[in-house]
Amino acid sequence: MTVVKSTIPESARQVTGDALQSTLVDLLGLSLIGKQAHWNIVGPRFRSIHLQLDEVVAAARSHADTVAERSSALGIPPDGRPETIASAYTLGGPKDGWVRDDEVVQAMVEALDTAIARLRKRIDATGEPDPVTQDLLITITAELEKHRWMFVAENGPGGSA
Amino acid sequence: MTVVKSTIPESARQVTGDALQSTLVDLLGLSLIGKQAHWNIVGPRFRSIHLQLDEVVAAARSHADTVAERSSALGIPPDGRPETIASAYTLGGPKDGWVRDDEVVQAMVEALDTAIARLRKRIDATGEPDPVTQDLLITITAELEKHRWMFVAENGPGGSA
Amino acid sequence: MTVVKSTIPESARQVTGDALQSTLVDLLGLSLIGKQAHWNIVGPRFRSIHLQLDEVVAAARSHADTVAERSSALGIPPDGRPETIASAYTLGGPKDGWVRDDEVVQAMVEALDTAIARLRKRIDATGEPDPVTQDLLITITAELEKHRWMFVAENGPGGSA
Amino acid sequence: MTVVKSTIPESARQVTGDALQSTLVDLLGLSLIGKQAHWNIVGPRFRSIHLQLDEVVAAARSHADTVAERSSALGIPPDGRPETIASAYTLGGPKDGWVRDDEVVQAMVEALDTAIARLRKRIDATGEPDPVTQDLLITITAELEKHRWMFVAENGPGGSA
Amino acid sequence: MTVVKSTIPESARQVTGDALQSTLVDLLGLSLIGKQAHWNIVGPRFRSIHLQLDEVVAAARSHADTVAERSSALGIPPDGRPETIASAYTLGGPKDGWVRDDEVVQAMVEALDTAIARLRKRIDATGEPDPVTQDLLITITAELEKHRWMFVAENGPGGSA
Amino acid sequence: MTVVKSTIPESARQVTGDALQSTLVDLLGLSLIGKQAHWNIVGPRFRSIHLQLDEVVAAARSHADTVAERSSALGIPPDGRPETIASAYTLGGPKDGWVRDDEVVQAMVEALDTAIARLRKRIDATGEPDPVTQDLLITITAELEKHRWMFVAENGPGGSA
Amino acid sequence: MTVVKSTIPESARQVTGDALQSTLVDLLGLSLIGKQAHWNIVGPRFRSIHLQLDEVVAAARSHADTVAERSSALGIPPDGRPETIASAYTLGGPKDGWVRDDEVVQAMVEALDTAIARLRKRIDATGEPDPVTQDLLITITAELEKHRWMFVAENGPGGSA
Amino acid sequence: MTVVKSTIPESARQVTGDALQSTLVDLLGLSLIGKQAHWNIVGPRFRSIHLQLDEVVAAARSHADTVAERSSALGIPPDGRPETIASAYTLGGPKDGWVRDDEVVQAMVEALDTAIARLRKRIDATGEPDPVTQDLLITITAELEKHRWMFVAENGPGGSA
Amino acid sequence: MTVVKSTIPESARQVTGDALQSTLVDLLGLSLIGKQAHWNIVGPRFRSIHLQLDEVVAAARSHADTVAERSSALGIPPDGRPETIASAYTLGGPKDGWVRDDEVVQAMVEALDTAIARLRKRIDATGEPDPVTQDLLITITAELEKHRWMFVAENGPGGSA
Amino acid sequence: MTVVKSTIPESARQVTGDALQSTLVDLLGLSLIGKQAHWNIVGPRFRSIHLQLDEVVAAARSHADTVAERSSALGIPPDGRPETIASAYTLGGPKDGWVRDDEVVQAMVEALDTAIARLRKRIDATGEPDPVTQDLLITITAELEKHRWMFVAENGPGGSA
Amino acid sequence: MTVVKSTIPESARQVTGDALQSTLVDLLGLSLIGKQAHWNIVGPRFRSIHLQLDEVVAAARSHADTVAERSSALGIPPDGRPETIASAYTLGGPKDGWVRDDEVVQAMVEALDTAIARLRKRIDATGEPDPVTQDLLITITAELEKHRWMFVAENGPGGSA
Amino acid sequence: MTVVKSTIPESARQVTGDALQSTLVDLLGLSLIGKQAHWNIVGPRFRSIHLQLDEVVAAARSHADTVAERSSALGIPPDGRPETIASAYTLGGPKDGWVRDDEVVQAMVEALDTAIARLRKRIDATGEPDPVTQDLLITITAELEKHRWMFVAENGPGGSA
Repeated sequence: MTVVKSTIPESARQVTGDALQSTLVDLLGLSLIGKQAHWNIVGPRFRSIHLQLDEVVAAARSHADTVAERSSALGIPPDGRPETIASAYTLGGPKDGWVRDDEVVQAMVEALDTAIARLRKRIDATGEPDPVTQDLLITITAELEKHRWMFVAENGPGGSA
Repeated sequence: MTVVKSTIPESARQVTGDALQSTLVDLLGLSLIGKQAHWNIVGPRFRSIHLQLDEVVAAARSHADTVAERSSALGIPPDGRPETIASAYTLGGPKDGWVRDDEVVQAMVEALDTAIARLRKRIDATGEPDPVTQDLLITITAELEKHRWMFVAENGPGGSA
Repeated sequence: MTVVKSTIPESARQVTGDALQSTLVDLLGLSLIGKQAHWNIVGPRFRSIHLQLDEVVAAARSHADTVAERSSALGIPPDGRPETIASAYTLGGPKDGWVRDDEVVQAMVEALDTAIARLRKRIDATGEPDPVTQDLLITITAELEKHRWMFVAENGPGGSA
Repeated sequence: MTVVKSTIPESARQVTGDALQSTLVDLLGLSLIGKQAHWNIVGPRFRSIHLQLDEVVAAARSHADTVAERSSALGIPPDGRPETIASAYTLGGPKDGWVRDDEVVQAMVEALDTAIARLRKRIDATGEPDPVTQDLLITITAELEKHRWMFVAENGPGGSA
Repeated sequence: MTVVKSTIPESARQVTGDALQSTLVDLLGLSLIGKQAHWNIVGPRFRSIHLQLDEVVAAARSHADTVAERSSALGIPPDGRPETIASAYTLGGPKDGWVRDDEVVQAMVEALDTAIARLRKRIDATGEPDPVTQDLLITITAELEKHRWMFVAENGPGGSA
Repeated sequence: MTVVKSTIPESARQVTGDALQSTLVDLLGLSLIGKQAHWNIVGPRFRSIHLQLDEVVAAARSHADTVAERSSALGIPPDGRPETIASAYTLGGPKDGWVRDDEVVQAMVEALDTAIARLRKRIDATGEPDPVTQDLLITITAELEKHRWMFVAENGPGGSA
Repeated sequence: MTVVKSTIPESARQVTGDALQSTLVDLLGLSLIGKQAHWNIVGPRFRSIHLQLDEVVAAARSHADTVAERSSALGIPPDGRPETIASAYTLGGPKDGWVRDDEVVQAMVEALDTAIARLRKRIDATGEPDPVTQDLLITITAELEKHRWMFVAENGPGGSA
Repeated sequence: MTVVKSTIPESARQVTGDALQSTLVDLLGLSLIGKQAHWNIVGPRFRSIHLQLDEVVAAARSHADTVAERSSALGIPPDGRPETIASAYTLGGPKDGWVRDDEVVQAMVEALDTAIARLRKRIDATGEPDPVTQDLLITITAELEKHRWMFVAENGPGGSA
Repeated sequence: MTVVKSTIPESARQVTGDALQSTLVDLLGLSLIGKQAHWNIVGPRFRSIHLQLDEVVAAARSHADTVAERSSALGIPPDGRPETIASAYTLGGPKDGWVRDDEVVQAMVEALDTAIARLRKRIDATGEPDPVTQDLLITITAELEKHRWMFVAENGPGGSA
Repeated sequence: MTVVKSTIPESARQVTGDALQSTLVDLLGLSLIGKQAHWNIVGPRFRSIHLQLDEVVAAARSHADTVAERSSALGIPPDGRPETIASAYTLGGPKDGWVRDDEVVQAMVEALDTAIARLRKRIDATGEPDPVTQDLLITITAELEKHRWMFVAENGPGGSA
Repeated sequence: MTVVKSTIPESARQVTGDALQSTLVDLLGLSLIGKQAHWNIVGPRFRSIHLQLDEVVAAARSHADTVAERSSALGIPPDGRPETIASAYTLGGPKDGWVRDDEVVQAMVEALDTAIARLRKRIDATGEPDPVTQDLLITITAELEKHRWMFVAENGPGGSA
Repeated sequence: MTVVKSTIPESARQVTGDALQSTLVDLLGLSLIGKQAHWNIVGPRFRSIHLQLDEVVAAARSHADTVAERSSALGIPPDGRPETIASAYTLGGPKDGWVRDDEVVQAMVEALDTAIARLRKRIDATGEPDPVTQDLLITITAELEKHRWMFVAENGPGGSA
């Protein structure tokens, strides 16, 4: 069923659609693991990190919505169903059960590191086919890099990140 | 690792924990399929249902948070990771790709029907072991039943729901 | 015309529907007599009671809406038409024309006394068939009992209520 | 009991009082049938009309309050008790039980048609005895005519209204 | 110095200007005596009337501003200087020093009675020369009549107003 | 295609419709020239007039919406398309390119002068056929006369306006 | 002096009144020791716990108000005077003078543990005599259990709570 | 009259100025036809599309302001006068008089299609001479493409867009 | 009639009462002349000074209220009646009719100069008898000196102030 | 344990600390008796005084917080524990059980009278050792004296206060 | 001490870090000279420019924060210490003491001219190494160019800028 | 160039001006080093101190504005230019590059210690020449002492401050 004709040529639509779909999965996954950590964190920094994680979740949810609607706007139906996220998500996250605050910080740094590296590749790939999508990915990268810095800074001068 | 001692006896904690964990999965799943439909719906009722779905998503997210934090408060670490949702979610939802508005309405009615039936069983099960959890499940049921009615009413006089 | 299939069994639906319909009439009636007193009160406590009555009206209107929508959610069409209220309303209220402030206070105490006694019976009746409806009636009773206390306290140490 | 001396002569007070009292009944009745339709509407336009009806109800309630307080300000105690509305209300409304969305639209157009025709007669009647009341009736007519147009427009090009 | 040419003919400007200037004095005077009573009232209704008076003052100040700016808009410089108010104000008010709450109510009823009677004459006078000004005076009269009613109602069934 | 039956007689509808349509064109035109001046003004009063113009634009847009919807409410489809405004607009405005602040003030005074004169004629014409429309035109005139005064006052004691 | 007649039978009133009065003392006491800790805490988690304590205080104050007003609504005058709190309060709290952050966390966990155990007994006791009061106690328990979890989680994986 | 010296070279200023001026005309035109449709739409989707159109108008007005002020910032006086819009606007729109809801949707899809195609050419053209302007055009394109998708989705699975 | 016993000795009460009463007259007078200038100012700085004057009026009204209520709190009934202001006010202000913007600025500087000099004497006089009143006068002086500076700065480098 | 070194000399710290600690006890006690009266008041002025008491409580709580944090800032740990308030509080308050409105007013006047007299002594004592603390005590005195006046004024012309 | 590993390669990090550090100095410097002018400006445009300068300061402060945090996010510690700003700032600003309004406008135009020219070079330099940083610099340039235009327009048709 | 004549005598103006100018430098410097620490802090308390520092910066900026405008109000042009701050600032702050959280806390305690000691001397010096300025310095000291306490408390029981 073809419903929404794209405003960009077919070739551009392919690479842009792939970039948006994988960004959508990363962001929905981040929102789920962020909440998981928000609920299961323990340790002396509980309250501070508990609140910080909710800001990451809010950002991830909001950007996921923008990314999915941009995909629709280009005539590419986005896919954010539970089974899709579970099979496509690759950024890792906290383990099951209670998690110590320093483990949470480390898991978030690693998940954000991977997310950012993948986004930077998509920024390169979309500049030519669709600068509008590229601009959106740049905005998301700026925010995730800010959150990554704050988790890294939590780890302090001896941190390996 | 035992971290949070429960405020209720061990036996009560078991049944209450199960009720909360499966409610958490249902609500996170609903928030994901609600968004999926929000992005992929097409048809003359697009805008109306598109907005209505976001109210379901907001309710599901907010209640999921309360449910997970109640689980933590009882000493039971909640599990809302991507792989858990994908394997445990059973309420169905819209198929992949663009979906007609009447199909979306039907899918939401069916998902909410199942969710409500499952919640009513948990209300029965938790009244004795933990009336505080029961009260929370009653609140969630009231809101989901309201959303279900509105989707059913959309289907109008000939609807089979 | 059957439109909305109920989420509770037929027998439960009957008693719950009756409880909701009579609560709806009581609340719509209270909102009307509250406004009538708000407009017609005279005496040295005019301003104080005039404002207090608007809080009762706001509560009655808001709860009436929730009660009627809960009825719809259970597949029972609520009835709040002018002729229904007029024939079914039994809580009394201020007489026609200007009313003295102490008469208003007395009339509100009596109307709320009756409304509360009826609600407490419905709380007993609905606990088994539908705890979700029972929880709603408990919430309404708590608020009406608070308003009743404030009118009784207005009557002071010599009040008979 | 004469409490509030009027600021206008006796003859003016009579016709103005009649205009205000019958407007009060019309508006309170509209607020009740608007809510009735809000709760019982079914069909593919459910959500859209459901929300629109609440705007009519809000307008009717707000103007009813202004009309009743203007009556009091002129020394004429207004009457908005349940039995008065039931016996004096003549604008019609939706039938009992679930109502199809197109029937709701038609019922609202007819009720508003009658209300507006009655208001325009009162505008003529009050200009001489009390221009302050006339100005209020003009304001109400403007808003009801706007709501009527929106329901008529819902019926579209083939509508008979 | 002629600065602002009027948008209405010279004859219309004269009568309209007079109506606006005397309304301005009445409203500024009301705002001053309202505050005077707000500060000096004593008695069991202190708090209730103290707050009510501030609503009169807010209304008087706001309308005074609109009236004066309307005068400027018609090319007639308004005059609200202390000496002008003192010499032109004729509505009375509370006496010097502490004032009992019932005396305050009576003084406000009398001041508003006079203000309203004067406004109604100006409504008659301005309809022909400037319906825009007339509409403003109608609005002010509606609000002052509402405030008058509330003070009269405070006096209750035995009040002479 | 006749869609919306009017609430006023055919003859009244003609003159009222003409008044509303030409007011619509004047207001949409004012909103366009107000923005044009807002963007192109230069001179020592740049910031002050730049901000003042946006208030005129906001008023013109808001009133245009009310006027057009009132036309629809009377069964007369309003016409605010680009070509209609361009051909029917007669109030003048700033010339192309940068404009000195005193020239902007003068252009606004002249455009508002003409708009007000035209509105006052329509107030006279609509009082009989539709007092509801007349009341709306009075409100618009009051606001435009206030804006005109403020631009005239900017020109100061030597201004010719 | 009997002032407010109860809406529940005498026997029910006794047990409900006792439950409310002891809950009132617990909550007022919690609000005082929460503030004491808020002012006297020292250590590397100062700011985080300092803010968290204010949320406990706000919750305790708000629920204390609801509990006391519910007692009044049932005809039982609540007692929250300084001497009553001092003699009846049994939940402990921080010692005099500066207190280390880990000691504060431990003291809050212990005070909340006791408060929750006492509340759960009152939930059992009030279900029969007054389900409205029971519902209120359930709500308070839910919030205190959430605050307790957050303090326990602060203690981290090695915490004994 | 040269007033504002540009911050970019003369050649860059020419192409950038052309891009901004034609974008300004497109956006002002869209705001006018959006309002025209908002007022004249009829049919069962009246309310839904009526509200959606106002969001397009708000976006078009807001972006038009930013575009015009950016032109001024580059030393190029923007031109948004009625006659300019009428002669330069080429995106089409609804015909005169009442318009069916499906015709409105179709007209908006077509106007947005053209606007987007033109914007994408300007994005290409401005990247070199002024990346700041390019970034603004990208932002506008993203929003118009989102609005276009929502109108297309309204047309549903059989839509030709 | 002695109503409010003072919290300070009789001698202190005398000097403090005088300071408060004359400050009240100065502030009420400033609020009246500020509005007079707000309405009658003409010239190229019309809008800027017109808005600035309203900030002075708001400050004067707010402080007048605090001053009068402080007087009441000390058992001294304040006097802000029209005749009192007219006879006791000595700070000058704009002349009758339209006033040029530079004349307004000069009149405000002079009125504020006098008001400040009088306040500084009262600060000296009240420090001993009532430091609470002194603190209030210091606050008022700080704000009036800030407003005075802004009017002086308007006069620029050649100003004589 | 010495934690916070003071910013003022040891001798100054002693007298300032005493002033702050006893002010803290007075304010916390006032907040408790204010609430006690808020819940137990009966009589025709119930609503008016009920609301007024909550303003006293809000002020007392807010100032208590500022006072305690100022004590901490000077290196003196404040003591607001239940047992401390109970043993140190000396301002009196309403008796146990329902209290008539006139008795409440009298009790508040007396408690505030004592609190103010004590504060004025502390203002004298702290001016030399710490003017920053003195300034805070002056602010609190101003607000308590305002509340005292309003309760005294409630008692009216025959009041003995 | 290496703390935050960069998300971009070493070479890209160097040029990006330099661009961000010098932008930080420019923005902090602008915020200081903007405030200096805000406090010291004199002349007939005092109020208008005084307010405009605060908008520049708010923009400069907000962007400085974003720029510095972006630098941290890339692993480059930003330097905004007083001595760094003083030694590195090169944009000029108002001289010491009172400054005439036209001199302030001229100084702001010149400082913004230089800042914009420097930013445009950094936009060119960062596009390759870090498009995320480039996007931020584009946003800042757009806002500074808007502020520059408004100061230039203040200078009017004869301005040399 | 003498522009603003002072409201206090020449001798008083000298000492007051010096106090204000050095306070201005201290506050602007604090706002810069507070931001520097906000951006460069690392360690397990990162988020907590990062947020706390922004509250110090907001307070310092707000008070700096008040201090500078008070200086202007007294006829003394304030000096907050980059070079002035750099040469006159003496309170220290964090070193260049990343800084550990405990070092940040220590640096803030020391800077605030010095700032407070300097302010207390100025409070002594200004009481006689200008009590209005003294009152402002008291307010600033109260807030800085509160911030100092919170940083000291962060250091906990073993802190040397």
